[in-house]
Amino acid sequence: MDKKEFIIRQLGRTKNKKYEAYVVTRIIHLLDDFSIKFITQQYVTRPEGRALTDLFFPQFGMHIEVDEGQHFIIGNIEEDKIREADIINATGHEILRVDVTKSFDDINTQISEVVKKIKRHRDKGQFVAWDIDSEFNPKTYIERGYIDVSDNVAFKTIKDACNCFGHNYSGFQRAGASHPDPDIMLWFPKLFPNGEWDNQISHDEETIIERNEDVEKAKEHVISHVNNKEKYQHQRIVFAKVKGNLGDTLYRFRGLYQLDIQKSNENTGLVWKRTETRVKTYEQKPC
Amino acid sequence: MDKKEFIIRQLGRTKNKKYEAYVVTRIIHLLDDFSIKFITQQYVTRPEGRALTDLFFPQFGMHIEVDEGQHFIIGNIEEDKIREADIINATGHEILRVDVTKSFDDINTQISEVVKKIKRHRDKGQFVAWDIDSEFNPKTYIERGYIDVSDNVAFKTIKDACNCFGHNYSGFQRAGASHPDPDIMLWFPKLFPNGEWDNQISHDEETIIERNEDVEKAKEHVISHVNNKEKYQHQRIVFAKVKGNLGDTLYRFRGLYQLDIQKSNENTGLVWKRTETRVKTYEQKPC
Repeated sequence: MDKKEFIIRQLGRTKNKKYEAYVVTRIIHLLDDFSIKFITQQYVTRPEGRALTDLFFPQFGMHIEVDEGQHFIIGNIEEDKIREADIINATGHEILRVDVTKSFDDINTQISEVVKKIKRHRDKGQFVAWDIDSEFNPKTYIERGYIDVSDNVAFKTIKDACNCFGHNYSGFQRAGASHPDPDIMLWFPKLFPNGEWDNQISHDEETIIERNEDVEKAKEHVISHVNNKEKYQHQRIVFAKVKGNLGDTLYRFRGLYQLDIQKSNENTGLVWKRTETRVKTYEQKPC
Repeated sequence: MDKKEFIIRQLGRTKNKKYEAYVVTRIIHLLDDFSIKFITQQYVTRPEGRALTDLFFPQFGMHIEVDEGQHFIIGNIEEDKIREADIINATGHEILRVDVTKSFDDINTQISEVVKKIKRHRDKGQFVAWDIDSEFNPKTYIERGYIDVSDNVAFKTIKDACNCFGHNYSGFQRAGASHPDPDIMLWFPKLFPNGEWDNQISHDEETIIERNEDVEKAKEHVISHVNNKEKYQHQRIVFAKVKGNLGDTLYRFRGLYQLDIQKSNENTGLVWKRTETRVKTYEQKPC
């Protein structure tokens, strides 16, 4: 997907609210800078719960809400719909509201203010222009030396994630891969029930629970992992398999997790606790 | 419907083509002048046939086409869908095309050119700012002294049309009304088959055929009108009942028509030929 396609599709999906398309397209066109990435209808998790924001600027950790006078928090009823969705942690992000119950001129003034604010963020100096090719390219992160959760990193394939850690795969489909540090494994789980595994991630992303749906297998899985640290690494770099808002599959970087042996048991499953939100990347080994 | 509502609804219906919403919203937001009226998805009739244009600026007789590389002319198959539609005669109008098969940067450059061109039209000097209240108000046309087809005049009710010609109605529902000139009648027909009347207007709007669907009534209608000029005026100012693109009813001014006695007959019906595209308006008589 090139930038043209990406932008057209992002703008083409703003249909939830009556004034949403107007506000979103006006911000994007008045901003008139396609080195600024944007996502429409982004699922986020925040301390107060999960929500859907109308427009998200990942480079600035900034969200725009079209405020129709009623607060929209996704309750449990939506849980099933969004379990596969790419949900980003928006704790600490800035949320700007455009109150569309106001007059037309007032709405346009509010939008101008939003656009000015975004431009100020951009002009602060640490701005890195959006490059749709490089953001999905392992080379970008190898050159940077690390992958950080706050950079909103996701790959389109498992192999691209692997290739940030010394691999040189042209294809790879398994849910686990090796890491230069033998105590660490790369893991590409679905963090929702999928028929075989009933995995979960906490809303703050700090805890992952891994559990086989079959009681016998679950038991065996926990015992073997807890007791055999040599065979089953107790540290995992996690890229969760999610559906991006355009229906595309993404492997979203979540951090480095450590097995919590005390909390893991046959009933709960394996409990993984996040220890790092930034991990080192490695040069690809030659084939 | 106020301007806010009108603009939101016009922009909300651009869903025919993949790039349409992008191009249309970008033009409107970069133009950033809501004294310029616009209509999305306007049916037009032109010498080469009927068509749907993506964006229409009535003040400039200018249309924008999002060109996806294939020409879109509505054939007979669509005739039934659009028979009630508000179709404007776009003969002599300017049509600008935005070729969306080009690169993203190229598309944006084309849009900038379109916006510049519209601004040049506006700045020529005869520009009258869009006023959504006054454009539907009879007073506007009484003060102007005339109604002209080229000004794209339509009213929301029959009474508003009547009140441009000396009436002072607060309500009026009939399909005909008197005019200060006793030889002229105001007429508010549906110009498509409606179960009782099988009326038609030619694509160039120059000819209207009026015919009762009942053979006996049709015969009687033609004979009485042709032979009794005193009772049945042979000149009519026509406001055709149409559905605007937001689903609202409009009475669209078509001009002054004269009965063509030679062409009218029992089989064809009454044939009306347009003699004027501009008619004089009259002060309202006091109640």
